[in-house]
This record gives sequence, structure tokens and C-alpha cells, in this order.
Amino acid sequence: MLIPSWVRHYRRGLLAGDLTAGLVSAMLLVPQGMAYAALAGLPPHLGLYASLLPLVAYAWLGSSAVLSVGPVAVIALMTASALGAVAAPGSPEYIAAAALLALLSGLSLLLFGLLRLGAMAHLLSHPVISGFTTGAAILILIGQLRPLLGLTMPSASGVAMLSDVVRNLDDIHLLTAAVGLSTLALLLLSRHWLAAGLHRLGIPEAASAVIARLTPMVLVLGSIGLVHVAGWADQGLAVTGELPAGLPPLMLPWPEPGLVAVLLLPALVIGLIGFVESVAVASSMARARGERMSADAELRGLGAANIAAAVSGAFPVAGGFSRTAVHAEAGANTALAGLICALVIALVLAFATGLFTLLPSTVLAATIIAAVLPLVDFRRFASTWRYDRADATAMACTAAGVVAFGVEVGVALGVALSLASLVWRSSRPHIAVVGQVPGTEHFRNVLRHQVVTRPGLLMLRVDENLFFGNAEAVLHRVEKICTGQTGLRDLVLVMSSVSHVDTTALEALEALHDKLGRRGVALHFAEVKGPVLDRLAGTALIARLSGRVFLSNWEAFSALPEPRQ
Amino acid sequence: MLIPSWVRHYRRGLLAGDLTAGLVSAMLLVPQGMAYAALAGLPPHLGLYASLLPLVAYAWLGSSAVLSVGPVAVIALMTASALGAVAAPGSPEYIAAAALLALLSGLSLLLFGLLRLGAMAHLLSHPVISGFTTGAAILILIGQLRPLLGLTMPSASGVAMLSDVVRNLDDIHLLTAAVGLSTLALLLLSRHWLAAGLHRLGIPEAASAVIARLTPMVLVLGSIGLVHVAGWADQGLAVTGELPAGLPPLMLPWPEPGLVAVLLLPALVIGLIGFVESVAVASSMARARGERMSADAELRGLGAANIAAAVSGAFPVAGGFSRTAVHAEAGANTALAGLICALVIALVLAFATGLFTLLPSTVLAATIIAAVLPLVDFRRFASTWRYDRADATAMACTAAGVVAFGVEVGVALGVALSLASLVWRSSRPHIAVVGQVPGTEHFRNVLRHQVVTRPGLLMLRVDENLFFGNAEAVLHRVEKICTGQTGLRDLVLVMSSVSHVDTTALEALEALHDKLGRRGVALHFAEVKGPVLDRLAGTALIARLSGRVFLSNWEAFSALPEPRQ
Repeated sequence: MLIPSWVRHYRRGLLAGDLTAGLVSAMLLVPQGMAYAALAGLPPHLGLYASLLPLVAYAWLGSSAVLSVGPVAVIALMTASALGAVAAPGSPEYIAAAALLALLSGLSLLLFGLLRLGAMAHLLSHPVISGFTTGAAILILIGQLRPLLGLTMPSASGVAMLSDVVRNLDDIHLLTAAVGLSTLALLLLSRHWLAAGLHRLGIPEAASAVIARLTPMVLVLGSIGLVHVAGWADQGLAVTGELPAGLPPLMLPWPEPGLVAVLLLPALVIGLIGFVESVAVASSMARARGERMSADAELRGLGAANIAAAVSGAFPVAGGFSRTAVHAEAGANTALAGLICALVIALVLAFATGLFTLLPSTVLAATIIAAVLPLVDFRRFASTWRYDRADATAMACTAAGVVAFGVEVGVALGVALSLASLVWRSSRPHIAVVGQVPGTEHFRNVLRHQVVTRPGLLMLRVDENLFFGNAEAVLHRVEKICTGQTGLRDLVLVMSSVSHVDTTALEALEALHDKLGRRGVALHFAEVKGPVLDRLAGTALIARLSGRVFLSNWEAFSALPEPRQ
Repeated sequence: MLIPSWVRHYRRGLLAGDLTAGLVSAMLLVPQGMAYAALAGLPPHLGLYASLLPLVAYAWLGSSAVLSVGPVAVIALMTASALGAVAAPGSPEYIAAAALLALLSGLSLLLFGLLRLGAMAHLLSHPVISGFTTGAAILILIGQLRPLLGLTMPSASGVAMLSDVVRNLDDIHLLTAAVGLSTLALLLLSRHWLAAGLHRLGIPEAASAVIARLTPMVLVLGSIGLVHVAGWADQGLAVTGELPAGLPPLMLPWPEPGLVAVLLLPALVIGLIGFVESVAVASSMARARGERMSADAELRGLGAANIAAAVSGAFPVAGGFSRTAVHAEAGANTALAGLICALVIALVLAFATGLFTLLPSTVLAATIIAAVLPLVDFRRFASTWRYDRADATAMACTAAGVVAFGVEVGVALGVALSLASLVWRSSRPHIAVVGQVPGTEHFRNVLRHQVVTRPGLLMLRVDENLFFGNAEAVLHRVEKICTGQTGLRDLVLVMSSVSHVDTTALEALEALHDKLGRRGVALHFAEVKGPVLDRLAGTALIARLSGRVFLSNWEAFSALPEPRQ
């Protein structure tokens, strides 16, 4: 564990790919890092701090060769939302709280990783994750309209912000809006046409794609040049300003108890969301590359990355969607690519921060908007709606909840809806009356097949686990079916689909047994699975069962006597 | 609906039972009502107000003939906990807020009833309800030690209160403690021995039981007499004091928006808990009496009862455990028994409130303790632990949560644990490799049966619905099983236990399909249930499926070709 396996198995042939990917990713990470720091309400250089040591930590403990760890849009948004309650954006208290948030988030991920709780990643269903991502992306888009258009009204949140922007359209700073909108247009155009265009010019497809991905860095440098030459900074165009030069000073955030109490829950949610999104990216990459990926190692890797972010005085990090795709496309073979990327960031911090003094804020806003636009995914909603309306509803409510009430409420809503639909689905189980397929030992639904039944004997198959959510409903349905039978003497519950009977359901079965007993009907079980039977064996229900437990339907059908005439 | 069915079908033969039950219940309700009002932090006469109109409203709209609606211990405790944040106990604001709490609770129950959401009662599993009841009973017991022993230190909550009591044992008011503890002893002894003793003296069993239930009223009246004769009120024994005479003045609580915002969530929780407990009592009674009971009608009945409590200026009500048992035992046949009980309470309020001026508070505390002691149920924990450790854990955590953090947190913890264990159980489904039982069309687990398999063909049966909580795990397990097979060409997923495939699981199946495809293995399905197949039919997975969808295992086994040699 101290020396990661990719180091022990490194071959020289992997180096070229790792080198290219590391350089390309760094070119993307510099503008994105600064933009996401701004999104989190922090000075831009902290975005570069968050792009250095966390990558080293992840390369050491993480399991994915291609996951690009660092600042990501959704986590930056959640950071801003968590810290907004604590201090004024950009203030020293705010910056200190951001590092503490990363520390708490990292420690909890590391703890979960050591406890091997990686399966937690499956607490969130794909529709909820997708709805969450769309909602968060919309929130981010709305929030970036202000810096993009050079508006100066105070920041509000979500929908209120949108109406503020519309009401203040007169106050748009035309130069800012022109720079921002043309940057955005170039970013979007380059994404859709540049790679294809370069390919048509004879450049190999992979190389064209990589070059097209460098557009953000080119536009950042180009805009800095233009601002310098045209003197736009003096005409009211907001720029980044002086950045502190040099590598991040290392420190450990002071865990002030009152602040820890306020930040612990947001830190857990941020950690969990970052983890879920990283696992989603990393596992789809691992699948595509035929590699293995371990959710527990991811927990440890992301935990270490966040602790590294905290020590750097930065803010929470995770694995990014789009950057990971670039990283993989550019040829990343091992985590060495991440280390090379970190090295480039370190060189930028050491020698080139002065370069970004004149970087326009509106260009960073355009970078963010271009990065999160693809996350707004309405087509996925349409296809989910066609397949499963409950899932589509959970997706839509999560997205709407995030936009209307913020990320935490949105996630809570999504999780609650997923669980509710799970309970709801299991709460109305299918119950079939079964009979013997003539001449065989098979038993099938009487409504769908030509089968043999016998007066006085009723065989019911329950197609769901029995638990508190459906125990009462099953009991009620079984009673109702029995009431319709005249001369009923034996009821056989066919348990072939039941893998679990919880305490509530056991009590319901006891109530059913007694109720049938008063009507003179014996209750039998058939096809009970081994583990279920093992548990039931010790209960009062089986001890005083009026009927018998049969191995198979056929055994029950053969053993139970014909009714007396 | 305007005239309840019990009125339309009333027969004179039912009257004797209803009359007895009404009188007996009133004798129990007078001391309990006053005691629970004190428990809720309210003046005792409000407990009588809560025992009058709510009974009339429930008799009109409720569905149970024997449910005894009125003040109950757990709801009184929750009322105190909700109002503690709003005003000082006993103050006019506190009293007004109690009525508003009843109004909000009643309106939400009524709304749920009109929406026919009675199935909500099954959101809470029996172990959680049982753990909650035990925890709440312990909280109540601890809280009543103060009035029982005549201690005067300020009230704390839960465990802190217990240590306060222990530290202040020197300050016990000996006369108060003597009266309280002897009342408690008499109550407990009468419960265990009085009925049997009377029966041995020749009184019929049912009558003995009813007479024994009158003990609380006898002790209340006896203690009042003693206090009067011995002048104990002048020796520091706390008594109830002057109660306002007459029927409750009707009013509608003023829904002050700020207060509504604070009380709405507690009101919903109180309504839900009261509903769940009432349904638990009413449905076990209905089962024992062979009657039907409707959860939706209960919602409307309890909703109306709480609105009636609000209009009376009282506090939230529900159906009580022990009182309902007494009510049924005493012969209640229809809701008329409740109306007769209400009439007696009205007579007490109109003419006999003066009687209770000298009622010692310690006697009320003893009444509460005796009433909630049977709710502390550790044996049930033991039996649940033997049957299902997850359920027992949920039960213990709910009880501990209620005692340590209060009722709301306890309930939330219990619900979360129930849902978590539901997801956890379904997250590790049983997957069996199946083969043909020789000479039949049956397919069984290769590990348990002598079956025929064929090289190149693998048939896997998944014994659980496929959903976000287990999709990844199933995928992983299936892949692992496949990896162990050399020369695998066809994988058949046997879906006989799968009633639902959600969006997340569908995506996992697609990923499995593609992964198998790259290995040259075709994916087939067999025994897919009708509704599942209907949904899958429209998906990309089925459209581009490398294999086929077979009706039965046998069809798949027969149709898939032998491997080329």
C-alpha cells in the first residue's frame, strides 16, 4: 500500500501517453481551477493550490489511472453554499473555513474508506445523480450570468438571481459582456467544430481532439494579451488582479469546535457527492478500458486528496467529469499523468502567476458556463420517463429541488424519493393463485395458464419479500382472496419469491394464521427458501402452525387430502 | 357519511354494553386526562376538555367501535417537547400554542384522510414503533419522578433529569413521596392481584376485571378525601388547585404565521405518531373482534378529533393503548360508548370540578407511571433479536434515540434505520448457478441439487428485484462468475424472482451486455415476468441484445446450441 502498484509495474512505453495527458490536463486545469475557486467564492489562486497536492495524494492512494482530481464545478457550488452561512465570501474567515471543510470532508471519506463502506456509492440512484447534476449545472449557469455580463448588483441565489439579472439588464457592462459572450461562443464553437476541422486538415483524429481541448487555455492567454494591449482593465473590465506567487504555504486548518459543528454535515454531503460523482466517472472509464476499480480505494484516494487540499489552504476537491475524459483521451496510462499535471501546476505557481493578473473575470465565467452546459441533460429525462415514471419523477424533483432550494435540499429530496419509490413498489406485491399444470409438477398462475385446482385448497404465490411496507397489504389481499372461496380448508402460501420476512411481516403472518384458524382453515407454506426457513423455524408461528411446511408445491398438492364430500 | 353507519344499524341490545363501557372509560379518563395534561405542561382541566368534544368527533367520523380517543401519554410528551421551544409551560402563549398544534395536526390528518393516504401507517415498522414506545415510556417515567417525589429543582430532559433526581434525593418531600409511592404500589398491586382476588370471591371474571380497572379513580377520590381530612395541602403536598368550572369555551386558535411555521413539522410528526399508534391499537382490536377497520377513516376520525380538541382550547389527542383495552373489556359495542363517556366528562366539568381542587400532583404522577410502565417492553427486544438482528438493532436505536435526543430524533432514526436495512438486505442478492434436473424441465441451484449443465452455457438466477441499491453488486458478481468459466459463449439471466428493474439497474444490465459482448459472450434472458418484459421491450438493451429472450429456462436450454467441438 505504501508504494502504489502502478509504480511497481511501470514500463517505459507508458511514459509518452502519461506525459502528453499530464501537460494537456494542466492546460485545462489552470483556467478551470481559477474559475471554480471564484465559483466557490474564493480567490483564484486557491484553485491552483487545489490542483497540486491533491493530485499527488490521489496518485498515491486512488485506484483510477485516469480520474482527474481537483476543483470541480458542483463541489465548488456546494462549498459556496456551505460557507455562505459562516462568513463573507473572500474574507480570511471564509478562506479558513473552506480549508476546514476540505479537512472534514477528507477525514470522513478516509474513515469510510478504512471501514470499507465503498458500497455507499449506491445509495444514490442514477436518476437522482443525473437530476442533481442537471439542477446544480442550472444553478451554476444562473450564477455565472452576473460576472459574464459585468453586472454589479449583489449576488442572490438560484431563481431569485435569474430575475435579478433580467431586471438589471440595463446595467450590463457592454465591454465585459462582449468579451465574455465571444469567449463563450468560441469555446462552444471549438468544441463542436474545431476537432473535426483539424482532422479534415489532415491532423490525426486523436491529436485533433486533444488540440481542440486546449482552446480554454488559448482563450485565457489570448484574452490576457488583448486586455494588456487594449488597456481594457482601465475601462471597467474586471480582472483577476495580483495573485500571490509561489507554492502553497502548508498549514493545518484549526478545527474550532463551533465551526466544526456547523460544517460537519455539509462536509459529509460534499464528500459523499464528490465520491459518488468520482466513482461514476472512474467506473465508467474503468469499464471502457477493461480495468478494475475499487470503490474503497476511491474513498481513501479522495479522502487523502481532500486532506491534501486542506493542508494547502484550498477547498474540497473531487474527480471531474469533463477533465477526466480529456485526461483519458490525451493518453493517460497511469497515475503518473496526474503527477506530471501537478508538476506543471507547481511550475505555473512558482514562476507564472504574474501572467494571470489581467485575466478577465468574464472569461473565467465563460469557461465555467462552457464546462457545465453539457451537464444539463433533458434528453436523459425523456428516455427515463419512457422507461420508468417513478425514476423520472425522482430525477425531475431532484433537479427542481436543487434549483429552488439549493444542493443539500435537492439531494435529500432525491434520496427520499428513491427510497419512497422503493418502498412504494414493494408495498403492492403481485399475488397469484396458482394451480398444477396438468400432468407435470409445475404450478402456474390460474389467470394465465390452463391449470388444475382443487376445491378446499388454495395455493397463493406472493411475488415479493415480506416486510413492514407490504405486510399489512399482503395480509389484507390474502384474506380477501380467501373470503371469496367457499369450503376452503387449506391455504398454501408459496414462498418461492420471498427472500426475507422481517419482524413486522412475521407478526402479520401470525395474525393471518390466527384469523384463518378461527375460520377452520389451516395455513401451510411451500417452497420456502433455505435461509428464510432457518429463521422461521425458531418462531412461535412455526411452533404452533395449524398446517405444514412443504418442500415443493407438488408435495403440498399431493399430500393435502381431498375435501370430504 | 353524514350519519355514521353504527347509528343507522343500532339495536337496543347493544345499549347495556355501551353504557357500562362509557361509564367505566370515563372513570379512567378523568384521572388520566388530568395527568396527561400535566405531562404536556398544561393545566389539568385541559385534559378534561380534550376528553369531551374529540370523542364526539371521533364517534362521528372514525371507524373503530372501541378505540378510546383522548389525551395519551406519548402524544402529551411530544406536545411538551414541541411547545418547550415556543413558550414557558403553563403560560397563556403555551396554552394557545397547544391548541394551534392540535389544529395543525388535525388538519393534516384530515387532509391525508381525504387523499386516502392511510397506507402511510406502514411507513413505520413494528420494531420501530415498539422501540419508540419503550423509549417514550422511559422518558415519561424519568420525567414523572420529580412530581412523584415532590422534588422542586427545575425540570431538565431525559437522562439529565435522571441524574438531577439522583443528585437531589436529599430534597425529597417525604409526605409527597409517601403518598405517591403508596398510590403507585396500590395501582400496580391492584392490576396484578385485584381482578383475580375479586374473581375468587365469586364475582364473575369480566366484572372483576372491570372493577379492577376502576382503581385509579378510587385512588384519586380516596387521596382527595385523605388530603381534605388530614390537611396535607398545608404541609407542602402539591395539589391541583382550583379548576375552572363549566364546559370548555369554544374558540378557534389564531394561526399566527410565524408560530405555524415553527409548529407545522412537530404537528405532522405528532399526527403521524398518533395515527400509527391508533391504527395499531384499532386494527388489533378489529382483528380480535372479527371487524373491519379502515386506515383512511381513522385518518379522518383522528383529524376531526384533533380539530375538536383545538376548538376546545385543548391539545393533541389520539387513541390510547390501555384505555382502549378497558373500553373493549367493559363491553363497548359501538361508538355510542364513546359518546356516553364524553357525556360523563361533560357532567364532571359542569358540576364536579371543585372535587379535584385537593387532588395531589403526586397521585397524578403515580397514575402516569402505572399507565406507561407496561409500555417498557424489553422481552420484545429479546424475541426480535433472536429472529432478526437488523430489526432488533432498529428497535434498540429508536428507543435509545428517543431517550437520549428526544422523540422527534428517535423517530427519524428509527425510520432511517428501517429504510437502511431494507436497502442493505436487497443490496446483496442471492445469485445461483442453475442447471436442469435430469429428465425434467425443472432448473435448480447446482450447489444444492444434482443437475445437468452444459459447457459454454451459464444460467444464473438472481433472487431479488434489480434496483439502484444492488445493480452494481449484481453486475460485479455476475462478471466474477463468468470470469471463472472457460469457453463461455452464452449467459442466460433467469429473471423468475425479478419483479422490477429500475433505471439504474437497466444501465447496469447494458454495461454487462457490452462487457460480455467484448468477450464474445451473448446475453440472454429467461422467465422474465410479463410487466418487466413490457417495460424492457422498448429499451435500447433489448433492441440491440446479443442474445434472445426465452419464455422458460427449458426453452433456453433446448434452443441454445451445443458448443462447437
